[in-house]
Amino acid sequence: MASLTIVVAAIFLLSLTSASVVHGRSSRRRFVRSYDEPCMEMRLYLHDILYDYSNSTSNSTSAAATKPTALATAVPSTGGTFFGQVVVFNDPMTEGRALPPSLEETAVRAQGVYLYNSKEAFNAWFAFSIVFNSTGRRGTLNLMGADIIAEKTRDISVVGGTGDFFMSRGVATLRTDAFEGFTYFRLQMDIKLYECYV
Amino acid sequence: MASLTIVVAAIFLLSLTSASVVHGRSSRRRFVRSYDEPCMEMRLYLHDILYDYSNSTSNSTSAAATKPTALATAVPSTGGTFFGQVVVFNDPMTEGRALPPSLEETAVRAQGVYLYNSKEAFNAWFAFSIVFNSTGRRGTLNLMGADIIAEKTRDISVVGGTGDFFMSRGVATLRTDAFEGFTYFRLQMDIKLYECYV
Amino acid sequence: MASLTIVVAAIFLLSLTSASVVHGRSSRRRFVRSYDEPCMEMRLYLHDILYDYSNSTSNSTSAAATKPTALATAVPSTGGTFFGQVVVFNDPMTEGRALPPSLEETAVRAQGVYLYNSKEAFNAWFAFSIVFNSTGRRGTLNLMGADIIAEKTRDISVVGGTGDFFMSRGVATLRTDAFEGFTYFRLQMDIKLYECYV
Repeated sequence: MASLTIVVAAIFLLSLTSASVVHGRSSRRRFVRSYDEPCMEMRLYLHDILYDYSNSTSNSTSAAATKPTALATAVPSTGGTFFGQVVVFNDPMTEGRALPPSLEETAVRAQGVYLYNSKEAFNAWFAFSIVFNSTGRRGTLNLMGADIIAEKTRDISVVGGTGDFFMSRGVATLRTDAFEGFTYFRLQMDIKLYECYV
Repeated sequence: MASLTIVVAAIFLLSLTSASVVHGRSSRRRFVRSYDEPCMEMRLYLHDILYDYSNSTSNSTSAAATKPTALATAVPSTGGTFFGQVVVFNDPMTEGRALPPSLEETAVRAQGVYLYNSKEAFNAWFAFSIVFNSTGRRGTLNLMGADIIAEKTRDISVVGGTGDFFMSRGVATLRTDAFEGFTYFRLQMDIKLYECYV
Repeated sequence: MASLTIVVAAIFLLSLTSASVVHGRSSRRRFVRSYDEPCMEMRLYLHDILYDYSNSTSNSTSAAATKPTALATAVPSTGGTFFGQVVVFNDPMTEGRALPPSLEETAVRAQGVYLYNSKEAFNAWFAFSIVFNSTGRRGTLNLMGADIIAEKTRDISVVGGTGDFFMSRGVATLRTDAFEGFTYFRLQMDIKLYECYV
């Protein structure tokens, strides 16, 4: 009787947690290594170009949504921290630190929005997609979170994914790797996915 | 001894993965059919009206956040692709292609923001809620992702839900179903939820 | 033979759903009490200050992204409901209703964006992070959803978290607790997490 219970419980659990495995065809299933060890991780650098060195926007990869050509002329009352500034971006991402040869044709891009939200210091908030478009990786990761610039590293959430990153969740750790005034900044992103669906 | 281990393991797993089932009352539980077959799916059409045919905004369902009445006068330097333009929308959604009789009183609406993020081509990014308000379905789905307009279909993430869609996750596939200049566009959305909580 | 199957199934399930438990060290694991009873809950009040009583922005915690000092001068065609208005905020949050002694140095803050998206009535949409920075709690929760102001309470999604709230998911219920014209509003947020990772 007890063993029957086990059989029933085991079959019930099997159908509940791994229904995809019992199908004949190879099918997608949820994969968690552990919540301490990611099922997938990668380091990427985001390059955000506001103005190039000739002070032109011809190479820019982001645009201030509110005053597209006036990011350098902050509202005086905000104390130069751009409180309220919303910036739309479409930034190349690379595995190494170097800028890609072409800013437009990059295999990985970050597309979305960031905004400055402090009167006292530079502080930002991000919501964006990482778009992968190479033969090796195709799909998107969707992220959002607070970028507390005053802290050396800060974590944001990977809230979902598509394609090769179907349904993925995890955490991305941001670190400012370079900051050149209003022309360029580079963020290091250590992306760790803890729930993969492969 | 071995069978005791199994009993313990089975009981442990039972409590871990299906605690809600052992309660006396009917209670909500996580339901995954498989990660290939959605636990819920639906097709909806989103209608975004910028200007009506008399070039007025009286019927518009979206508003450019930056210059509410000047969407047609793009910043010249962006090459007509509206790079940096942020648009707030509150669009009716329908199960068929036809516009609803009333633009305001629709049982399903998409509320949120999209933005244009490319200098080379039309390319967008979305973050929004689908608000269901009928006798049959009540609640919201929350979505975000890159809308790579150049691709025939593109996937975004369903990152959460409330009410009848409590905690749901999945993927929505977008397809441009109609595009009439700056007056109107219609997106087909195939929404597939893979994690339901019922 | 049947019992062998059970052993295999049990071991398979054990490795699939609770890999972290079998490690020697203490490690993070997914914790769900049930989908009716949160694994963590809290009530917080969000204080959004647009203008102080002398009609100045010196104490403001939010900024209209589009016209940083002109929130009170709505576009006439929007009928006073600010359709299309995007507001960036960095609001103190408290456990009680009272404003914190200092608006800048608060242990809990909400950082992100809300926007007004209706021509007929006040209706909003939120995407933001709750940033915890005390000795007791450190980390962030990331939320998004429709704030249907006409309804007494409305639910939005907790789509992820970091630090002490690593990977958390759940629902937050909003209620307007105070509304003082264009100077101040207070939202009560009942946050219930159903998936914790501890």
